Amino acid sequence: MLGTGVVGRTIGSALTEHGHRVCLGSRTADNLTAGEWVASAGAGASQGMFADAAEFGEVVFNCTPGVVSLSVLATIPADALAGKVLIDVSNPLDFSAGFPPLLSVAVTDSLGEQIQRASPEARVVKALNTLNADLMVRPSALAGRHDLFIAGDDDDAKEQVRTILAEFGWDLRDVHDLGGIAAARGPEMYLPLWLQLMGALGTAAFNVHVVREVPPSG
Amino acid sequence: MLGTGVVGRTIGSALTEHGHRVCLGSRTADNLTAGEWVASAGAGASQGMFADAAEFGEVVFNCTPGVVSLSVLATIPADALAGKVLIDVSNPLDFSAGFPPLLSVAVTDSLGEQIQRASPEARVVKALNTLNADLMVRPSALAGRHDLFIAGDDDDAKEQVRTILAEFGWDLRDVHDLGGIAAARGPEMYLPLWLQLMGALGTAAFNVHVVREVPPSG
Repeated sequence: MLGTGVVGRTIGSALTEHGHRVCLGSRTADNLTAGEWVASAGAGASQGMFADAAEFGEVVFNCTPGVVSLSVLATIPADALAGKVLIDVSNPLDFSAGFPPLLSVAVTDSLGEQIQRASPEARVVKALNTLNADLMVRPSALAGRHDLFIAGDDDDAKEQVRTILAEFGWDLRDVHDLGGIAAARGPEMYLPLWLQLMGALGTAAFNVHVVREVPPSG
Repeated sequence: MLGTGVVGRTIGSALTEHGHRVCLGSRTADNLTAGEWVASAGAGASQGMFADAAEFGEVVFNCTPGVVSLSVLATIPADALAGKVLIDVSNPLDFSAGFPPLLSVAVTDSLGEQIQRASPEARVVKALNTLNADLMVRPSALAGRHDLFIAGDDDDAKEQVRTILAEFGWDLRDVHDLGGIAAARGPEMYLPLWLQLMGALGTAAFNVHVVREVPPSG
């Protein structure tokens, strides 16, 4: 797990609850937030530097803020990620001009693509970037079906991601495969609408469901 | 109605069916597509140049392709739009590099804002740009609730838009007011995801529903 924020800790805890071992990675080996998480998450939880976490994982999650993700990846030796599934949960949100944040990459490129280019031997899958951390690992917190979007160049990697999502309780009918990693642009450019909806609804506890059923005829 | 494409004709027909009179505007007074539409739509339907349609309407819909919307508005005298509700249905999709199209404006600006700046005396409301024409005017074509997003600086104008949407059959609980016209950025930047979903689902007959209900406790 790359990143010790709410997203990294929430996904990390969900994984340990499902019996996986998780190393939470940060810039320093003795990060205080990571230490508290290790103490609370119990068996199977550990911490280390980003490179340690990348080395440790069979599957690696990028949960760092999008504007620093590339600099984090630059601290990780290529060997540590070679052939591995790298699930990119991050969003390229630049808060330097205040709220709402602006996308730091969009339209003709995406953070998912940048990460794939920076880690060409990893198998990058964009996933889980379109909803808040609690819902990522506990979809049943909302009543009714709601959906996820995944994108990546490697079909086997996407299948591994779907297996993890099913562990979290996702109905795989609601996980939409949008195509190759260039399709990360859509879910990333959805973020401004998500932020506006959060403001309009007064909560981050929402998600979208793709409705495509037609009414019964007659 | 500005624009004689599928969107303009579909909304125009829905309005005439609800008893409104509609003038379909284009670059020329004798546009063939508009003429065929007038013949088929019957009483209440007419055609003219863009300026004629703007002058005619109490409420004006911009249904022109986004990349030409500003040039279309430049052909309309400011008086023709002063004080009127201008519903911007368009999307800034640039197909010049093929499919998928790229957004011609995004992140720090939007077509809705550009149109409001170009027509400062009009009351611009972004609406209906996030789904296909048939669903805009016939939401019951999908089973179950699905949603719309509106944005604009004038609350009274947004209320007029809601009245029209209710005529089309929309459940106003599912019409999300995102704020001022700068909030047009979100629904416009959602388009790349919409296009990807259309590809993944193999149909344009879909829309999203914002799910925010929590399950009953206990």
